[in-house]
Amino acid sequence: MKRILIEVAYDGTGYCGWQIQPNGLTVEAVLNQTLSDFLKEDIRIIGASRTDSGVHAMGNIAVFDTNTTIPSDRICYAVNPFLPEDIRIISSGEVEKDFHPRKVRSEKTYEYHIQNTPIPYPTISRYAHCITPVLDVEAMQQAGEYLVGTHDFKSFCASGSQAVTTVRTVTGLKIYTKEIGKGREIIIEIKGEGFLYNMVRIISGTLIKAGLGIYPPEHVAEILKAENRKAAGETMPAKGLVLKKIDILHRGEEENVSAKAP
Amino acid sequence: MKRILIEVAYDGTGYCGWQIQPNGLTVEAVLNQTLSDFLKEDIRIIGASRTDSGVHAMGNIAVFDTNTTIPSDRICYAVNPFLPEDIRIISSGEVEKDFHPRKVRSEKTYEYHIQNTPIPYPTISRYAHCITPVLDVEAMQQAGEYLVGTHDFKSFCASGSQAVTTVRTVTGLKIYTKEIGKGREIIIEIKGEGFLYNMVRIISGTLIKAGLGIYPPEHVAEILKAENRKAAGETMPAKGLVLKKIDILHRGEEENVSAKAP
Repeated sequence: MKRILIEVAYDGTGYCGWQIQPNGLTVEAVLNQTLSDFLKEDIRIIGASRTDSGVHAMGNIAVFDTNTTIPSDRICYAVNPFLPEDIRIISSGEVEKDFHPRKVRSEKTYEYHIQNTPIPYPTISRYAHCITPVLDVEAMQQAGEYLVGTHDFKSFCASGSQAVTTVRTVTGLKIYTKEIGKGREIIIEIKGEGFLYNMVRIISGTLIKAGLGIYPPEHVAEILKAENRKAAGETMPAKGLVLKKIDILHRGEEENVSAKAP
Repeated sequence: MKRILIEVAYDGTGYCGWQIQPNGLTVEAVLNQTLSDFLKEDIRIIGASRTDSGVHAMGNIAVFDTNTTIPSDRICYAVNPFLPEDIRIISSGEVEKDFHPRKVRSEKTYEYHIQNTPIPYPTISRYAHCITPVLDVEAMQQAGEYLVGTHDFKSFCASGSQAVTTVRTVTGLKIYTKEIGKGREIIIEIKGEGFLYNMVRIISGTLIKAGLGIYPPEHVAEILKAENRKAAGETMPAKGLVLKKIDILHRGEEENVSAKAP
């Protein structure tokens, strides 16, 4: 029996998120079914991030135990032809038997994509939320800087969360733009070791309000202080969110081992 | 009666191309139907580029005649809510009554998108063709330079074309790359006043062969000389191709008037 770490990429449009649901197709359910059928074992994967319905991923990670004799780094190539085209295992490799993707320290990188154009371009719309008024990106960047570091993010946590503490650390927040047609795409990149429920989408909604001039960048400090979900901006739609990668920071004695190897 | 120029963007995945077909949904048919229903007139649009089945556009252009009293530059905003989400009119404006988008001189910009990754990322796959071996982008760029200028592109024209002459002018060919996950996206940007049937997709297939090292960049000069479709590379799949924009070069007495105005 060996434990395999897989990196998983998916277009979340057609899925009710990662985690198995009684009603509705999920990425976890498809992976369990396909891996079980292919390996002829009862495979139950453990995912690192239970992304919400409609959220995309380029590098979510998960583990499962198997007795297969297929070389660990070839499992991805062997299984992919049996997965639907909107899910792909990007890499596979053996890890320690006690490696648990939610218990290991890791840094997650999310991106929220905004199509800032007068009229949405259909080829961009599938993976970006459209905001038509011109956003002040500099104000958004300034607003974002108040969120970097360790704070109580209670204002940025959707109700219904079962988190024990709402203190989290945002290790980086950058905003990139690229020209598209008559406007641009604005990408909010957020890194951190852990995020609260809907936190990235609420941060994005808050930065968009700063970008619209509804409040000045420094108001974000007040929002943090309020510790009240109502103080922050709206939860932006799922389709603009993508989990880019998860870097393992600490695994047993090792430091900075990337989950992306091999 | 006035003539309206529209810029049209679409995700071509669900369409049998631009031009009306007896069987199969096309972008032209949807626009004619939606505009006719909305304006309560019999609208017949004339498109600049009859893109193939599955090809995308960010800025195709078309004209139609109407008696509507809606201000010309507001027609796009008025009609868009009645179009399917995968088609959007990006702009609208009045032009001369004799303006014909296929008779006016224009420069078209196409992009061919390649996902050059070991395993395709589903969020990239919809708009990019995946090539798994690492491509030599410098060789592709060198190969592309042989195509810039005025040449007989007979080797790059799909059979069945009714073109009177196969001489065309490529005014620019550039290759861009951007990092994605474990690889990169390679974008071939090609500009010209006119293209033969499947020409951009055949050029892309030829440059990919140079990128794979199947032949050296200078072999492209031989391919041009051969004036034989079989000498060039394969026609790459439609989903990687997007018509980015069409710039009107000459309209009556004017020079360099962009079709993108207003």
